[in-house]
Amino acid sequence: MGSPVHRVSMGDPWSRRVHPDIGSERSTRSFDVERLTNILDGGAQNTAVRRKVESIIHSDPVFSLKDNYFMSQNERYEASVQKKFHIQMIAQRLGWLEDSRELYYAARIFSGDLALGLQHIFLKALRSLGSEEQIAKWAPLCNTFQIIATYAQTELGHGTYLQGLETEATYDADTQEFVLHSPKITAIKWWPGDLGRSATHALVQAQLICSGARRGMHAFIVPIRSLQDHTPLPGITVGDIGPKMGFEQTDNGFLRLDHVRVPRENMLSRFAQVLPDGTYIKLGTAQSNYLSMVVTRVELLLGEIIPLLQKACVIAIRYSVIRRQSQLRPGDPEAKILDYQTQQQKLLPQLAMAYAFHFLATNLLEFFHHSYNAILNRDFSLLPELHALSSGVKAMVSDFCTQGAELCRRACGGHGYSKLSGLPSLVTRVTASCTYEGENTVLYLQMARFLVKSYLQSQASPGSTSQRSLPQSVAYLTAPDLARCPARRAADFLHPEVYTRAWAHVAVRLIKDSVHHLQTLQQSGADQHEAWNQTTVIHLQAAKAHCYYVSVKSFTEALERLENEPSIQQALKRLCDLYALHGILSNAGDFLHDDFLSGAQVDVVRTAYLDLLPLIRSKTLLNWGNPAYEKYIRPLLQSWRAKL
Amino acid sequence: MGSPVHRVSMGDPWSRRVHPDIGSERSTRSFDVERLTNILDGGAQNTAVRRKVESIIHSDPVFSLKDNYFMSQNERYEASVQKKFHIQMIAQRLGWLEDSRELYYAARIFSGDLALGLQHIFLKALRSLGSEEQIAKWAPLCNTFQIIATYAQTELGHGTYLQGLETEATYDADTQEFVLHSPKITAIKWWPGDLGRSATHALVQAQLICSGARRGMHAFIVPIRSLQDHTPLPGITVGDIGPKMGFEQTDNGFLRLDHVRVPRENMLSRFAQVLPDGTYIKLGTAQSNYLSMVVTRVELLLGEIIPLLQKACVIAIRYSVIRRQSQLRPGDPEAKILDYQTQQQKLLPQLAMAYAFHFLATNLLEFFHHSYNAILNRDFSLLPELHALSSGVKAMVSDFCTQGAELCRRACGGHGYSKLSGLPSLVTRVTASCTYEGENTVLYLQMARFLVKSYLQSQASPGSTSQRSLPQSVAYLTAPDLARCPARRAADFLHPEVYTRAWAHVAVRLIKDSVHHLQTLQQSGADQHEAWNQTTVIHLQAAKAHCYYVSVKSFTEALERLENEPSIQQALKRLCDLYALHGILSNAGDFLHDDFLSGAQVDVVRTAYLDLLPLIRSKTLLNWGNPAYEKYIRPLLQSWRAKL
Repeated sequence: MGSPVHRVSMGDPWSRRVHPDIGSERSTRSFDVERLTNILDGGAQNTAVRRKVESIIHSDPVFSLKDNYFMSQNERYEASVQKKFHIQMIAQRLGWLEDSRELYYAARIFSGDLALGLQHIFLKALRSLGSEEQIAKWAPLCNTFQIIATYAQTELGHGTYLQGLETEATYDADTQEFVLHSPKITAIKWWPGDLGRSATHALVQAQLICSGARRGMHAFIVPIRSLQDHTPLPGITVGDIGPKMGFEQTDNGFLRLDHVRVPRENMLSRFAQVLPDGTYIKLGTAQSNYLSMVVTRVELLLGEIIPLLQKACVIAIRYSVIRRQSQLRPGDPEAKILDYQTQQQKLLPQLAMAYAFHFLATNLLEFFHHSYNAILNRDFSLLPELHALSSGVKAMVSDFCTQGAELCRRACGGHGYSKLSGLPSLVTRVTASCTYEGENTVLYLQMARFLVKSYLQSQASPGSTSQRSLPQSVAYLTAPDLARCPARRAADFLHPEVYTRAWAHVAVRLIKDSVHHLQTLQQSGADQHEAWNQTTVIHLQAAKAHCYYVSVKSFTEALERLENEPSIQQALKRLCDLYALHGILSNAGDFLHDDFLSGAQVDVVRTAYLDLLPLIRSKTLLNWGNPAYEKYIRPLLQSWRAKL
Repeated sequence: MGSPVHRVSMGDPWSRRVHPDIGSERSTRSFDVERLTNILDGGAQNTAVRRKVESIIHSDPVFSLKDNYFMSQNERYEASVQKKFHIQMIAQRLGWLEDSRELYYAARIFSGDLALGLQHIFLKALRSLGSEEQIAKWAPLCNTFQIIATYAQTELGHGTYLQGLETEATYDADTQEFVLHSPKITAIKWWPGDLGRSATHALVQAQLICSGARRGMHAFIVPIRSLQDHTPLPGITVGDIGPKMGFEQTDNGFLRLDHVRVPRENMLSRFAQVLPDGTYIKLGTAQSNYLSMVVTRVELLLGEIIPLLQKACVIAIRYSVIRRQSQLRPGDPEAKILDYQTQQQKLLPQLAMAYAFHFLATNLLEFFHHSYNAILNRDFSLLPELHALSSGVKAMVSDFCTQGAELCRRACGGHGYSKLSGLPSLVTRVTASCTYEGENTVLYLQMARFLVKSYLQSQASPGSTSQRSLPQSVAYLTAPDLARCPARRAADFLHPEVYTRAWAHVAVRLIKDSVHHLQTLQQSGADQHEAWNQTTVIHLQAAKAHCYYVSVKSFTEALERLENEPSIQQALKRLCDLYALHGILSNAGDFLHDDFLSGAQVDVVRTAYLDLLPLIRSKTLLNWGNPAYEKYIRPLLQSWRAKL
């Protein structure tokens, strides 16, 4: 087939002229966009930092996205390594530190298109699980790239069930070493990013065996490749696990350990120590080793998952005011597709959700910061709630962001299927978040176990210590409840108190229902594990309702804090209303089940909801600080002019 | 990074030994699997043909899937062309004809991994829209690959709105030619498969202009590349549109026409003709030109979309009886993940759906065959119903198959994210079907318009001609209805009549509701187009409920035909029950809304539903004639043994 082939590519130079349809939309805004941007960024200072970082990255040819979608997996990997080292040099030159906002924004802008992202996870785990001496030794090596580190937990045969991890670390008191070993094929570490081709060191989670006793999962720093020539060290078999749905640029890898020895000091020892003679000293709880996973889960939300939905919203909504199709009335010019009710119903709830999750994740991050230092200092009182909340919120956010990004993609029709729209890579990337760092069903069930415990605690005698010490996020279990929703007119359902209480009512009912089913089965003779398994579908439903309630509540609280910004508050309130009502309509059965809402009231909710769509459509809430449209769609359309 | 890289690949030779966990599952089957296979194939003879084709394809090294996931887009394209020509040589040698079951099965086995699939769409359009002379001229050229043809309809600026297509075909009576022209960038044909690099001819849909009048969309055969050296012909600009989410092996293309002339005979003229002097003669209706789209939509279901869900089910369910994770009880061996209620709740409804859609699509295909010849002979009485049904069913099936395949993929955890599981390519392929051949929202709304008309017709005076001539698929609009569901115990809800009537009730209520909203808006002064747009979200809901009702009904009718096969009937009945009840629970609000079901009844439905899961789990319904597991997952796991 020797015919000349024209190829569409994202030409780098393109017109910066704003499309007239975008321009006219922007002219109708009802509030100060810059002010909202500052609020989302957490202050004008952060906005300035973000823009500085963006301008550095967007003007540097090394970071060009040109041809990204035409590269092989190998080329993507190489380019992402190059970009990583280039941004690192820039960071050194400009004095951006580990954990600085500059590097945080840089990571968000690259959206995973950088290699060696696992350095960050390694550092978080080191700081969570390592002693001060260990942190002082390893963090600088990592930050200055004297080593390249990854985090190796999941095995070929075990992901979810950490107690089942098969990699062993047996302490040899004679040499004061741990012997790391993969006893079976299923024990091979599988999936760690940067492991396939890059990492020199891995933080390996393994079952500790000392003085003949198994002590559960602990973390060990294991050198895996030579610092001289990058070849695998003795006893190490390592490589790439092959092509994946996304993450083309990442060398996810496998690692087999054959009696690999590391010194005693390489076991991270904040919460557990092995003395030279093999004595095991426990300083934390059984859960404290999971702390690094909690950190990662919380950080992922704002750093990785939610921005993917935000970008998808920006692309799809901007496309929907440029794309014209069909006529609303015969003889009219073709209409912007965002003027169709069905298109609004697809996209605006996703936009509302992006805002809801922004505030939800910000809240969670604050709670995390509040509790993290206490936990590091071995005060574990807030760990159960933090673990449950971070699990449930991660499951909810990743589930809905995936659904939402795919919905945005499909809402762009055929163009959403072209990689050049940017949407397929957002979708295949965000969908991974439903699985990594805890499979979502498993995470929801972690939340459910916490809810069962909390519910039983809430049933203690009123005013008792037990009842008063209910964790804050489940305190509503003892709040006064309404049997019927008092709202009647559409306007009534636009009161945050009305829909927040509606969500609280449903969540409490479902939690109660799930506990009731569990207890009934146990009373009829099922053992507790069988009873749990037979009620997990019901527990899932309860956990999801609770998470939705928490997200509605955090959105309404964010609104309350905006009382000095009335126009922004009004714009965001409509999104909050839409988010809450969309949730009610999508789960109408849960609200109708016990007549909390009647069918007629659900119809009123639907009216209120449908009436919100054109109100929100006329605003301008799409100014995420992100040039995704300019990056992806415009070059596609513009490259046309050049070729034809 | 010069380190040695191990690469996982699907080694071709692998053990045919059945995994003991699969073997033990198979030994518990409750019915004759071969008999069910024959029923699904439509007869033992078809099963034999299918197996013959499978054995030819699987034993031929040209068709090896080895390295498929490691190839570049270019290599995939070349391999798929090679495979196409190879299977065509085999077909010639063995006497497989166009439209033979052999070629049908071959296409299904390759699952799109063949180039030049658009030949088939071209031929279908030719046979639907061409005169007998045109068919006699072009079909043999196409079947013998003297030409390579594609079907070019969608444009850069228009997909959904066919009246808005901008490509023009202006008749020039002086030369008796049509002048095909793309007047604007947005008029460029965009997306046709095989167009980018392969096709020599395109069936171009264009606005006919003759004697100064615009006559709407008509189809023209346009030579685009030289039959000598494959270079684009004068006036033709053609090329590839770049990388997509899936379909890597397909050269989707663009086509710009610059005053390209074709003879008068190249306009397909079954339903419309242009005489030499430019006189336009209409032989069909305004819709008849859409017939080829109806054909494609109907054929896609069983030929492309449903098999993708079937394969995903096979892979995920087999994986779930091999993968063990965690313990159901402390001290037990790790459990097969299919023994967890949440895993059953993910996968078994997808399996039930795969069966439901098989029977639904088979029904639709029969109705299509029944009506197609009449339409070719210009009896258009069944076209509106065929158009509505094929639109609604395509939207429903592609939506649910996409959701289902993604659910199967995620149910395999991390391994489902590896391309080597086969699942990512199934998902990225099936999701395209929500957009191509009619965007699903638009298709549902086509169904909705038909439902509004049918409902108004059903309200004519009882027994009138108008009421009696209701199309068969909406005849239930006039059937007696129940205000409350009489079922009380879980067993009651396992009567097909109970759940079929429940679905009929909800569909009728929602259709009525949608018409009511439309009429209320119009009565309050909105013009009909505005009123339609403001009620489309409600119409969507009604169309979806109607489609679900139709699918439940076709499943129950298929069961009735199995009265001589009691054990198979019982096994499939459980899937039918699950399908219907899963639908009720997923849309519980619609059933609770007018108290057709009470909250207590919904709880009983949930009990009936949850009780079905372990009953179905213990059967063996996974024997689709498809070695997907052996093809994908086993090589992945086995290749391990070789490498380590």
